[in-house]
Amino acid sequence: MASKGVRVEVKAVSEGPESIESPYDEFLCVPPTIRLVSSSEEEFDAVIVGCFGDPGIDALRQAVRIPVVGPGESSMLFACTLGYKFSVVTVKRSVFSMIEAIAERLGVSKRLLSIRETGMSVAEVNSDHDAAKKKLIEASKDAVKKDGADTIVLGCMSEAFLGYDKEIAGELNIPVVNPVLTSLRMAESLVSSGLVHSRIAYPEHR
Amino acid sequence: MASKGVRVEVKAVSEGPESIESPYDEFLCVPPTIRLVSSSEEEFDAVIVGCFGDPGIDALRQAVRIPVVGPGESSMLFACTLGYKFSVVTVKRSVFSMIEAIAERLGVSKRLLSIRETGMSVAEVNSDHDAAKKKLIEASKDAVKKDGADTIVLGCMSEAFLGYDKEIAGELNIPVVNPVLTSLRMAESLVSSGLVHSRIAYPEHR
Amino acid sequence: MASKGVRVEVKAVSEGPESIESPYDEFLCVPPTIRLVSSSEEEFDAVIVGCFGDPGIDALRQAVRIPVVGPGESSMLFACTLGYKFSVVTVKRSVFSMIEAIAERLGVSKRLLSIRETGMSVAEVNSDHDAAKKKLIEASKDAVKKDGADTIVLGCMSEAFLGYDKEIAGELNIPVVNPVLTSLRMAESLVSSGLVHSRIAYPEHR
Amino acid sequence: MASKGVRVEVKAVSEGPESIESPYDEFLCVPPTIRLVSSSEEEFDAVIVGCFGDPGIDALRQAVRIPVVGPGESSMLFACTLGYKFSVVTVKRSVFSMIEAIAERLGVSKRLLSIRETGMSVAEVNSDHDAAKKKLIEASKDAVKKDGADTIVLGCMSEAFLGYDKEIAGELNIPVVNPVLTSLRMAESLVSSGLVHSRIAYPEHR
Amino acid sequence: MASKGVRVEVKAVSEGPESIESPYDEFLCVPPTIRLVSSSEEEFDAVIVGCFGDPGIDALRQAVRIPVVGPGESSMLFACTLGYKFSVVTVKRSVFSMIEAIAERLGVSKRLLSIRETGMSVAEVNSDHDAAKKKLIEASKDAVKKDGADTIVLGCMSEAFLGYDKEIAGELNIPVVNPVLTSLRMAESLVSSGLVHSRIAYPEHR
Amino acid sequence: MASKGVRVEVKAVSEGPESIESPYDEFLCVPPTIRLVSSSEEEFDAVIVGCFGDPGIDALRQAVRIPVVGPGESSMLFACTLGYKFSVVTVKRSVFSMIEAIAERLGVSKRLLSIRETGMSVAEVNSDHDAAKKKLIEASKDAVKKDGADTIVLGCMSEAFLGYDKEIAGELNIPVVNPVLTSLRMAESLVSSGLVHSRIAYPEHR
Repeated sequence: MASKGVRVEVKAVSEGPESIESPYDEFLCVPPTIRLVSSSEEEFDAVIVGCFGDPGIDALRQAVRIPVVGPGESSMLFACTLGYKFSVVTVKRSVFSMIEAIAERLGVSKRLLSIRETGMSVAEVNSDHDAAKKKLIEASKDAVKKDGADTIVLGCMSEAFLGYDKEIAGELNIPVVNPVLTSLRMAESLVSSGLVHSRIAYPEHR
Repeated sequence: MASKGVRVEVKAVSEGPESIESPYDEFLCVPPTIRLVSSSEEEFDAVIVGCFGDPGIDALRQAVRIPVVGPGESSMLFACTLGYKFSVVTVKRSVFSMIEAIAERLGVSKRLLSIRETGMSVAEVNSDHDAAKKKLIEASKDAVKKDGADTIVLGCMSEAFLGYDKEIAGELNIPVVNPVLTSLRMAESLVSSGLVHSRIAYPEHR
Repeated sequence: MASKGVRVEVKAVSEGPESIESPYDEFLCVPPTIRLVSSSEEEFDAVIVGCFGDPGIDALRQAVRIPVVGPGESSMLFACTLGYKFSVVTVKRSVFSMIEAIAERLGVSKRLLSIRETGMSVAEVNSDHDAAKKKLIEASKDAVKKDGADTIVLGCMSEAFLGYDKEIAGELNIPVVNPVLTSLRMAESLVSSGLVHSRIAYPEHR
Repeated sequence: MASKGVRVEVKAVSEGPESIESPYDEFLCVPPTIRLVSSSEEEFDAVIVGCFGDPGIDALRQAVRIPVVGPGESSMLFACTLGYKFSVVTVKRSVFSMIEAIAERLGVSKRLLSIRETGMSVAEVNSDHDAAKKKLIEASKDAVKKDGADTIVLGCMSEAFLGYDKEIAGELNIPVVNPVLTSLRMAESLVSSGLVHSRIAYPEHR
Repeated sequence: MASKGVRVEVKAVSEGPESIESPYDEFLCVPPTIRLVSSSEEEFDAVIVGCFGDPGIDALRQAVRIPVVGPGESSMLFACTLGYKFSVVTVKRSVFSMIEAIAERLGVSKRLLSIRETGMSVAEVNSDHDAAKKKLIEASKDAVKKDGADTIVLGCMSEAFLGYDKEIAGELNIPVVNPVLTSLRMAESLVSSGLVHSRIAYPEHR
Repeated sequence: MASKGVRVEVKAVSEGPESIESPYDEFLCVPPTIRLVSSSEEEFDAVIVGCFGDPGIDALRQAVRIPVVGPGESSMLFACTLGYKFSVVTVKRSVFSMIEAIAERLGVSKRLLSIRETGMSVAEVNSDHDAAKKKLIEASKDAVKKDGADTIVLGCMSEAFLGYDKEIAGELNIPVVNPVLTSLRMAESLVSSGLVHSRIAYPEHR
């Protein structure tokens, strides 16, 4: 999905929870992520956090001098320009507060119309792609028909990696934002524009 | 400023005000812009409106099936991810209400800390680049020191085309967002991601 | 509906869309409206825009020195004092974003509880008054029973000109705001109070 | 200041504080006001509360079937249509919370830019008109120059009755809203439009 | 329910409505309450208003130098720390605006997810405890299942005095906030911490 | 400062940053805190996080079945009932975003008027108490005089442990909220009321 000439490398942290499905998981994964990101700073032009919840993104931005991009942030920002009211379709209710916190922090809560869950955990999404696709379409339809959404954001990286966004978009006839794509585009855009996060907002750690 | 492989063509409308420095100017320029954009739909992959105020962007999105990108929208969205509080530095007080309206419509008013004017009209910016640069730096400094901004957005295309953003950024040591750059990046990102504005939000005109 | 001693003249613009049912229509009608309003300034004490969406009201206020009143604005302001939560009943979903934008601009979004559509276009309203009345009552009832509204605003001038507001109010036992009436009252009130829009907010166009 | 054909009668309550300059005063004056308003219902078409703080307006609306108009509410609503950002100029800091509460209840807090005090109590306003006028102009100028207001609301009936609004407006070249005038206009408008407050919002008292 | 060593005395005002079920009742009860509270200042360390609507709390705080605690305020504050989204379960729709006003004044409206009524008046609650309990559980369940609440606040002192909070909490498996308890705890906490309300916010009455 | 009969034990985590003065520090200290809190669950009735920024409070609440109290949350909640507008006085600008995030999460941003820094780091506060006291008074005065605060919150545990709150309160004649005290009171109140955080809001970790 990366643009031509862009090399993407996926790195896993050495420790931490299997998946991130609540603030508890989120907090446990941040310290090893800080270490990994810090050690990769020389080698890369930008970092994308590998979880829709953007865990520890403020701390990561303090740790390095290259752009640190969050899939949650970047997909919500793209959704803001694609329509007036977006819904996030995600795994389970336990992540709702994380998603609402991203919208609050970004300042776009007014645009986040609703959050809908498929009811499938990350493990279930990964083990049954067909069921996940079916549930994603169902939840997205509910967001459009019942809530009045005009844009859908896939609110989980495991859901996003399935690559069903275009299919769902075709079925519902509205944009479906894939956080993998938007975080790549945001990272590429920042690097090619020479933009890095503000040192006033994210002061260099001691 | 466009990415490799991207061709940008600048087209001028056949009628309308000399510059856009208030809602009055804004409304007069939209009908000819709709005609121009509609006639260009076959030839291009995306359209960027040539004014920071994003005049008529909702109507333009109804008129065509390709992405229509606004410099105001895209620069504010980038600013939202670069820090917590951005200020827009623009020409004159008469455009403040247009800028506030963009932030309202996008849902990011909470992040728009302040708007500061250089006091120079578009014509003056174009005729005295040195003075414009000096005033831009002054106003940006005030936004940082007096208002507490951590990110600056250049709130006028004439200011942006001067290309002083990196210089101001260097002087103030914070990100300075150039709407020419961000609208190009947003247009490139939408096209390369296969995303178009929502037909529920922007229904096809009759 | 005008007060005693007040003469109202209805003027049609020379060009523009048949009806205004989306931002696209809205933007096309503004330039001819500016011309008409400017040429009428000497003859009248105030101007009322003839569409609930208040198209181009900011620009019109810049164009003349007499009060320019919007039916959308004035009916929402009256609704704010009649109860705590009003719903707008209008033609079709394509105008929802225009109505939300009026509430945002006025600063009364918190009071706008919901928008409901009759599903009838302006042309349909004009050609079948009985059906329109039936649908208006149904949508208003839904706003009260399902959404919890305590006040109804008729969100379309064609609906308002039918004059069914008192009948609907009687049936539902709550205030129904007719934008034709409220914009007349607002215009009369401003003129008799010697109040004109702020030149700081709406600077005189060059 | 009333329109032609409108008779206004000023009635004083039989007990209560000398003036209303804090919530404490406000609460003490409401029960006698309820009694006075209830006993006047047969004789009048509408009631205007005689204090900018709109004391007990919700309760008064429950007590009678005729419109009950608040000077605070009506002047803020007029201010909302005259510009983008209004400031209230009032007597002393002790009434600020009452004014903010009106804006909150009306849903227009976003438009209330600032409150400024003259520092003169109601008694002082009434005993030294020249000083009051001078202080009103000073505070209004500060609201415009320092805060960025485009419209001024006189936030006290004693200030309003002095009748200096046009003079201040002329000096500052922006609209100055006189709550005496706007509450009369609002009362006249509601009566002539056949509108009364919502019985869902203000249920009839037992 | 008071903590060890704390003596609570319940005092009734000499006049006023039987119960407080709308702003009308609320305003009538404040003047006698002010008198009672003022005369009790010497004898007590703190005052708790005996109604969930916190009637006249601002005025009462002006009247004395000891803490004046509101059951509405204190239970909403506790609810804010127990979860993300609370619902208030109360008697009838006529008190909804009072409850929303408390949340607005406290600044916690964002956390007040919904208000649900049992449909039983205060008199009915007091005369049929079993029915009240059943209705409280039903309304609380609706708040959790249909609205998405994670915390319940009992929004009426008569409901609260029934003491069913733990039972309802057990049934729904979420916190149920009893305003009798929270206002006692808040009063005890303020007294033992040496904190009294701000004299800038609540200026001493003349 | 604890109430009679309440035993407080201070426990230090085995690893983590020296002090917490930015999100970076905050994230590093959470995993050891989770371990410490989990292992203490059997022994204690409630846990108070030892930092004003309430680091990881959501995760900690998922980890145990006893109340977890945050000094930031509890002091802001007390401030909300003591006045209308509070200011937080803290160490350095690098913690501002943490404090704003607490207010956002609690839903009380509207009440957080301003944040002011003493400019002294945690280490400096601990090594020079006199200077810290002087700076605290200065910053608090600025919050009252320049910003218009009616209540002060000490926004750092090291500042709070100095115990100067009563002295500052006396000097400024307004309430000064000490987070050590309020978190103790909140913990005591929750325990004695049998209230624990919502399992819907903070689901038990796997």
